Amino acid sequence: MTGSATRSRENTRARLLEAAALVFAEAGLDGATVEAVCERAGFTRGAFYSNFESKDELFLELAGTVSAERLTAVRQRVTELNESGALAQDCDATTLVQQVMDTGSDDRLGVMLLSEIRLRALRDHAWGKAYLKQEQEMVAGIARIIEDIVASGTMSLRVEPEIAARMLLIVWEGMTVRGAMAGQDDAQLRRTGSTELGRLVTLLLG
Amino acid sequence: MTGSATRSRENTRARLLEAAALVFAEAGLDGATVEAVCERAGFTRGAFYSNFESKDELFLELAGTVSAERLTAVRQRVTELNESGALAQDCDATTLVQQVMDTGSDDRLGVMLLSEIRLRALRDHAWGKAYLKQEQEMVAGIARIIEDIVASGTMSLRVEPEIAARMLLIVWEGMTVRGAMAGQDDAQLRRTGSTELGRLVTLLLG
Repeated sequence: MTGSATRSRENTRARLLEAAALVFAEAGLDGATVEAVCERAGFTRGAFYSNFESKDELFLELAGTVSAERLTAVRQRVTELNESGALAQDCDATTLVQQVMDTGSDDRLGVMLLSEIRLRALRDHAWGKAYLKQEQEMVAGIARIIEDIVASGTMSLRVEPEIAARMLLIVWEGMTVRGAMAGQDDAQLRRTGSTELGRLVTLLLG
Repeated sequence: MTGSATRSRENTRARLLEAAALVFAEAGLDGATVEAVCERAGFTRGAFYSNFESKDELFLELAGTVSAERLTAVRQRVTELNESGALAQDCDATTLVQQVMDTGSDDRLGVMLLSEIRLRALRDHAWGKAYLKQEQEMVAGIARIIEDIVASGTMSLRVEPEIAARMLLIVWEGMTVRGAMAGQDDAQLRRTGSTELGRLVTLLLG
């Protein structure tokens, strides 16, 4: 493909993913149809199927995109805090985590989408494998951020970075799911998640 | 009600719950109908509705029953290990957790059922409230077991028992869900969950 054809293709995928997020928020995973996504994005079904094999592939990629954006936002916050010298200070873990996680992300969408995808991954082995592979990349990304934070400060970790990363991911997910059940909005979800992550970070630091 | 009427009613409820577990395992939460549960239990719909308001109420109670049975099995293991003096010994946390969690429970059913119920609880606020209330009882039960273990040994906790209990529940759930996605059987699920719980227990102990 030429450069402009590649850009156009990426643009189509991005618009389909954006439309998928909106349709999912309204109708959930079961209710979201390829037709509804196409209509919202202003594309034909032909354009859809030349970009994605199925609705399943679209939503797994959407989940990956939401997670990757969250990770990028966190990485950027860590860089900012590092440059301002905030990470080198001896602040308590909860304050640190709150600063790192406070990126204005749409966590409620992420919670709902990942919960639906996880259930699908439990029911279907191929989905399960694809989900776990995607999540493993997320865990590796979190582990790299943890290594950077540890390297820039005076703290040390009591477990391997990947173990810490997975535990942090699971606790964040567990707390935000419960927060969403209790009807919390994005800001409250971040507070709920950050408070518990702060506790876990305190335990993880030697 | 007379004593025997109460017993008969409890027996009907127990048989409906047992049938619900079987139907759920075959058809999932969406596919499980009141008709199928009644047929399996050998009761009329009239008998069903004089015991449960709805399919929703039945499955939330089933989830509570599965959790409560798991908790009772763990409590019994702790008592046995305590009486044999195993808890007083300075064994490593992973070995301790493996012994405590090794109760032969049907964890795969629990993982699938609780995952479905949690998604329902995310979608519906009334379910969310009911689920969180039921889980809070579970957390309190785990906290009491933790207090007993700590009281009988030489270890101390770095956080409040309820905080530790919720974190342990979330990590167990997070790891067993991922194990189930990877196609693990009951014994493998317990090993996956226990290994990670062991790590968390090590972090939790001062």
